[in-house]
Amino acid sequence: MAKNVVREITDRDTDFAQWYTDVCRKAELMDYSDAKGFIIYRPYGYALWEGIQGYLNDEFKKTGHQNVYMPLVIPESLFMKEAEHVEGFAPETAIITVGGNETLSERLIIRPTSETLFCNHYAKIISSYRDLPKLYNQWCSVVRWEKTTRPFLRGSEFLWQEGHTVHKDEAEARKEALDILDIYEKLGKDLLAIPFIVGKKTEKEKFAGAVDTYSIEALMHDGKALQSGTTHYLGTGFAEAFNISFQDKDGSVKNPHQTSWGVSTRLIGAVIMVHGDDSGLVLPPYLAPTQVVIIPIQSHKEGVMEACAKLEENIKAMGLRVKIDDSDKSPGWKFAESEMKGIPLRIEVGPRDLEQGHCVLAKRYNGEKLTLDLDLVAESIPSILQHIHDDMYQRALLNVLENTKETTDYEEFKKIIDSEGGYIKMMWCGDQACEEKVKADTAATSRCMPFDQTPNGDVCPVCGKPAKYLVYWSKAY
Amino acid sequence: MAKNVVREITDRDTDFAQWYTDVCRKAELMDYSDAKGFIIYRPYGYALWEGIQGYLNDEFKKTGHQNVYMPLVIPESLFMKEAEHVEGFAPETAIITVGGNETLSERLIIRPTSETLFCNHYAKIISSYRDLPKLYNQWCSVVRWEKTTRPFLRGSEFLWQEGHTVHKDEAEARKEALDILDIYEKLGKDLLAIPFIVGKKTEKEKFAGAVDTYSIEALMHDGKALQSGTTHYLGTGFAEAFNISFQDKDGSVKNPHQTSWGVSTRLIGAVIMVHGDDSGLVLPPYLAPTQVVIIPIQSHKEGVMEACAKLEENIKAMGLRVKIDDSDKSPGWKFAESEMKGIPLRIEVGPRDLEQGHCVLAKRYNGEKLTLDLDLVAESIPSILQHIHDDMYQRALLNVLENTKETTDYEEFKKIIDSEGGYIKMMWCGDQACEEKVKADTAATSRCMPFDQTPNGDVCPVCGKPAKYLVYWSKAY
Repeated sequence: MAKNVVREITDRDTDFAQWYTDVCRKAELMDYSDAKGFIIYRPYGYALWEGIQGYLNDEFKKTGHQNVYMPLVIPESLFMKEAEHVEGFAPETAIITVGGNETLSERLIIRPTSETLFCNHYAKIISSYRDLPKLYNQWCSVVRWEKTTRPFLRGSEFLWQEGHTVHKDEAEARKEALDILDIYEKLGKDLLAIPFIVGKKTEKEKFAGAVDTYSIEALMHDGKALQSGTTHYLGTGFAEAFNISFQDKDGSVKNPHQTSWGVSTRLIGAVIMVHGDDSGLVLPPYLAPTQVVIIPIQSHKEGVMEACAKLEENIKAMGLRVKIDDSDKSPGWKFAESEMKGIPLRIEVGPRDLEQGHCVLAKRYNGEKLTLDLDLVAESIPSILQHIHDDMYQRALLNVLENTKETTDYEEFKKIIDSEGGYIKMMWCGDQACEEKVKADTAATSRCMPFDQTPNGDVCPVCGKPAKYLVYWSKAY
Repeated sequence: MAKNVVREITDRDTDFAQWYTDVCRKAELMDYSDAKGFIIYRPYGYALWEGIQGYLNDEFKKTGHQNVYMPLVIPESLFMKEAEHVEGFAPETAIITVGGNETLSERLIIRPTSETLFCNHYAKIISSYRDLPKLYNQWCSVVRWEKTTRPFLRGSEFLWQEGHTVHKDEAEARKEALDILDIYEKLGKDLLAIPFIVGKKTEKEKFAGAVDTYSIEALMHDGKALQSGTTHYLGTGFAEAFNISFQDKDGSVKNPHQTSWGVSTRLIGAVIMVHGDDSGLVLPPYLAPTQVVIIPIQSHKEGVMEACAKLEENIKAMGLRVKIDDSDKSPGWKFAESEMKGIPLRIEVGPRDLEQGHCVLAKRYNGEKLTLDLDLVAESIPSILQHIHDDMYQRALLNVLENTKETTDYEEFKKIIDSEGGYIKMMWCGDQACEEKVKADTAATSRCMPFDQTPNGDVCPVCGKPAKYLVYWSKAY
């Protein structure tokens, strides 16, 4: 591979954090702005978000959800209505105090999440069982004041979708929280080529104001987990705080049950850290803004550009995203750039290829090269891309499996966390004190309690008390 | 028509402003939030914006534009860099002064528009002619502190797209500003069924920081104009203020030429006020979230629901947006609701229709009814919708033509503005003093100078000096 020829990036295993930042910038995914913690989503980075948006928007609409847009701001008094929620979010808010050159009589919080806005609206528009369910979603940015920030992973502003739904009873709301979790898991499988560990959060790690929080967790190349999305069953807590009620068929007046759920541009960080390598970004084919790049070799020679144009046309006709790199750079530079940008498939077409009636295809994710008859290239590409996707998913899955250990011994747990990283499956008594001890001892946290709760021990290895839950533990972003 | 049976709205010609607000709320397009001037875009209103977004996003991408996302906030010092721009926007800004419980060392302006952010980024990423053009667009919300607000027309927060492009020379940048104006005009023709008057703004009315501003203007039912979108040729003013420069092919270093352009959720207001009537909203078919509603009559009778379902399936198969209203309301209520929501085509299916093998179709925009053979309905609908669209456009165009007067006499001008409203084409000397006099005398403003500048007089009727420009004048929102 044309490693680091054109644009120097740090080796991934030398300094993973620096490698990550290098890839973010050199692949032109983002740039820093003059406001600390606020990043610029450049076209290539934003296109990844558009890919995720497109996929999820379709899935949400197929399942009956509707998009809305709530205000950017929350009056402080409204924000204060649900106690746990306030406690969770108040410390990280940004506040407008001046508007139109005047000090405001009530301060306005920039939404860190919009439960309060949705609930306030729901209280007005819901009165009967006929008004339920409400299945709303919103695409927007939110602001959470962060001291230390990293591109896509943690920032003072990020893009996300936030779903907010209202249901007649607990069963329907709980089903919604799990159905959306399925959609998120499928997003990983179908689009991102990321196998998520899926499960329920502990009390300590759940969302401020939720009864239960579920999450999808991805394992990064450095052995740390990244919480990549959450769904919450909110119970009736918000409905009570905001006076949302409805008259049921039998005439009784009830508080409805709610959910909320979201994924963010954090998923872009997951894609980078799961698949990337020393040459830069590696994009899964269905997410890639450009799936195939055609690079002419000795483009001034007769027939080369024509053959490239013909090929581009044929590949486009297959419904694929393809482009020719006809810039005035050298082929070597173009190879390195297409690698940095993680384009799944590169096709080289030169005069010698034309003589022999074939061309060379190079797969970005494993460097494998194929020589194919020029006439057969276009129709072969869909299955090649499918294979790349499947193999990238399998490779990521294998990485999760190889880096998931089990133990019943807390000393061993500490050793693994310290030396190898990855997930450890270990039982837990359910006491927050043990979670806190694990965190203090090892910096690892409980990621989630998987749905398959087959125990691997009887006692909590931390305190020796009877074990209640099987938990995935790891260090995390 | 089932006027006002179900949901009372004010008559359009009794109180147009109240009618407008009634339609916004009763058609469930929006609701007010607890933050003054910030509205909630409800699913039906947001779906209109999604329709506009989808159309424009395709057009922008076809013409080589890329989406990006810039930060929500602008550090105050950055915001102050371009003098005219600051003067134009500073009075309406909302400002974050507190973040993470601390007073910020530098105040952050919520973007009222993002020229400064784009320019600051462009200065970093542009250095060679190879980097040009940059054709960026952003979908986001912006905040402008407004004292008096009206749903979709004027609000402290609104949704929009803002394009920001950079070009090697003036000709290319000027062409971009006009090409985008063409796309906006086509949006009116293809999707909104609104004929726009297109032209250049006067110095007084142009964008703060632009060399030239172009606009699309729509005429509302009450005879007032609505500026519905603008494109700006910015010259090199921003490039100079922000130090954007590039080395050209010949080695010389130059400032590039820029444009910016945008349309907003104001367009929803235009659709309401151009097409709506005393029964509520009237949506043009290609914009309508639901194009066809099927209403079963005596749905308990044998075969009725089956026939409706079959019809729905057939219409869906034509690629159209259709739904059955199978709620437990009366047919009369459903008729009135589908009218309030402006659904272009209503199909009634009852037992008597089934006996005769036909059904009744009602067109929302003119109340016309058709009886069609049940088997032929689905395949007839595309051409019926096309015809509705064309006719709505023609009707709106006729309204513009009938309400566009010409005069060379200022007294007559004042009379027309006062009694009839609409546009008046009248010559102008080019002096801002005359524009200000017109505004003071009549409340009318110069809307734009059309590209066809065939004069209708030699002197400015206001001051008697030689006329330079033909101007469309009218009262405006």
